[in-house]
Amino acid sequence: MTEYLAAVDIGGTNIRASVASIDGIHSKVKQDVMRVGDENTVPRQVDNLIAEACKDAGIDKKRISGVGISTCGPFDDNPRGKYELVVAPNICEGIARKEGRNNDWTGFPLRDYLSQSYERVEAGNDCTTAVNAEHMFGAGRGYDVVAYMTISTGIGGGVKSHGKLVLGRRNAGHFGHHKVVPNGRICGCGIRGHLEAHAAGPAIAAIYEEIMNRKIEVVDPKDKPKYVFDQFRRGDFVARRVISEAAGYIAQTLANVSADHDVQAFIFGGSMWNDKDVLQPLIEERFAECVHPTLGKDVAFKTAELEDRLGDIAALTMVLPADWVGAWQKTQPWQKPLETRVIKD
Amino acid sequence: MTEYLAAVDIGGTNIRASVASIDGIHSKVKQDVMRVGDENTVPRQVDNLIAEACKDAGIDKKRISGVGISTCGPFDDNPRGKYELVVAPNICEGIARKEGRNNDWTGFPLRDYLSQSYERVEAGNDCTTAVNAEHMFGAGRGYDVVAYMTISTGIGGGVKSHGKLVLGRRNAGHFGHHKVVPNGRICGCGIRGHLEAHAAGPAIAAIYEEIMNRKIEVVDPKDKPKYVFDQFRRGDFVARRVISEAAGYIAQTLANVSADHDVQAFIFGGSMWNDKDVLQPLIEERFAECVHPTLGKDVAFKTAELEDRLGDIAALTMVLPADWVGAWQKTQPWQKPLETRVIKD
Repeated sequence: MTEYLAAVDIGGTNIRASVASIDGIHSKVKQDVMRVGDENTVPRQVDNLIAEACKDAGIDKKRISGVGISTCGPFDDNPRGKYELVVAPNICEGIARKEGRNNDWTGFPLRDYLSQSYERVEAGNDCTTAVNAEHMFGAGRGYDVVAYMTISTGIGGGVKSHGKLVLGRRNAGHFGHHKVVPNGRICGCGIRGHLEAHAAGPAIAAIYEEIMNRKIEVVDPKDKPKYVFDQFRRGDFVARRVISEAAGYIAQTLANVSADHDVQAFIFGGSMWNDKDVLQPLIEERFAECVHPTLGKDVAFKTAELEDRLGDIAALTMVLPADWVGAWQKTQPWQKPLETRVIKD
Repeated sequence: MTEYLAAVDIGGTNIRASVASIDGIHSKVKQDVMRVGDENTVPRQVDNLIAEACKDAGIDKKRISGVGISTCGPFDDNPRGKYELVVAPNICEGIARKEGRNNDWTGFPLRDYLSQSYERVEAGNDCTTAVNAEHMFGAGRGYDVVAYMTISTGIGGGVKSHGKLVLGRRNAGHFGHHKVVPNGRICGCGIRGHLEAHAAGPAIAAIYEEIMNRKIEVVDPKDKPKYVFDQFRRGDFVARRVISEAAGYIAQTLANVSADHDVQAFIFGGSMWNDKDVLQPLIEERFAECVHPTLGKDVAFKTAELEDRLGDIAALTMVLPADWVGAWQKTQPWQKPLETRVIKD
């Protein structure tokens, strides 16, 4: 019987860890990602954070039988290990960053490292774990074939079909890397015309600025996409064109995901979905112009329900026993506020 | 223990049935599809064909414990039955045909009908059963994530991932209905810009004819795509443009399928793959321009091995016990020639 589990959520800037039992989440800690050292620096940091979370929960680390991990992806083979490497460009500066590097990692062996200390370790990228969580506890409950799409600074996705996560070799569900425009804009991955390069937040802001031939003036550059949505609502013709085009590419991708997976419910999250009053009707309308009529029949468009609370819950779904799922559907432990202790370097 | 199984392969013009044991295929019959009568006409015909195949095999129909079916799709809910309806536009003239109809069916309850007589009945569309067969006995052996694409008068597909067929609600794998061109050519399903409308055989011939402003003159109109490929080899600039563009759309779709499924091996079949000397290098080159580098890494492009023999073998894979699979991998019963008895109306 599983007594305690740990959740680990690795983002581009910080790492969160928590400890849970069937009764709920007992402790939460977070710390900035460590970027200096050898390839085991991040795995070691994760292990320490689990220990810190155990301390806060008042339990011995040895009582943790499983660790569920949610990471910014992707994954690749680990030629020197049993499990996969996490090859996150935001953390592994050897992948893309050329100057002022903190490290030259091209990947880190998270699962191999943690498997030395814990019975069961399972990792998924944050969209894979999200679709799992939404299917168990959120907007995806009751559907057989669910796809999750996050629209934010990037566009990602995950699919759960008939109770199983779709993983492919390891990196299935990268909806942001559907090619939608021949010879289009260059994506972060280096390929032209991917969805992410045409419809994610930064793309919408950049395309708007290019057409207007002026920079969007907002205090925080992160608010630029929101500015374009506000302009849309004010009737700005360029904003309408830019967002409508982006919605078209999103819809095209959803239609193709439907062709591949015959999806029953799409669930949307991410910062741009805060503007769903604008985005959702456009996407649904264009979806009908793109999708095979049989595949588009009775498809639900839903908003993610767990979102802010996804981190630890989503990570935990990777190792959650069935009896915990049943219990948590009733008790909804993610609803209970619990402070996160910030650990300084 | 399974003693005898029946295979049923339903095409647009005829239906084939065969009887098999672990020792191989014992009999094969075929008959033109019956188009007049009630919605049980085709299911009843299938049952009769199984009886005819049993007669040829010299066994009692009652000894058939399972029926595997391969059909031209798609499928839809059966509001009056337990299983799905086959909603094949080529057979169910109520779906699309307006004049000179033989029937007004919009679907037929194949599995519900046959389940009255047989213990186990499983149906898949012909690309789903094809990927299953290629994975068990053909070019897909040894791969964890396999996608099959047929390029012919239409474009279809199927995916098998970690031992399981990807079915979605029922109709997953319709690669021909990926949207690849905004406001493109009208597809058979009514939507603009689907892959099938831009890259299947008839599309290639039609686009060539439009650009040349003359009809391709061949004895059999089915040979028109082949003519365009021959012109490609002769250095015809228009043929090069038309085929290269089609290959680009196919590659774009494969890249998107990779994003969705993280495919390890693509297997190609269908009449247009006879011209793979032209098509394959173009597709592979364009694929590299479309796919996320991690998802495109070490992807195999293979030619279907079973093709002509797919019909009954593919249908059987839907109900094949594991011990038969092991035995057949050694004995390869599909290699043994066996005459098909044609049954007249």
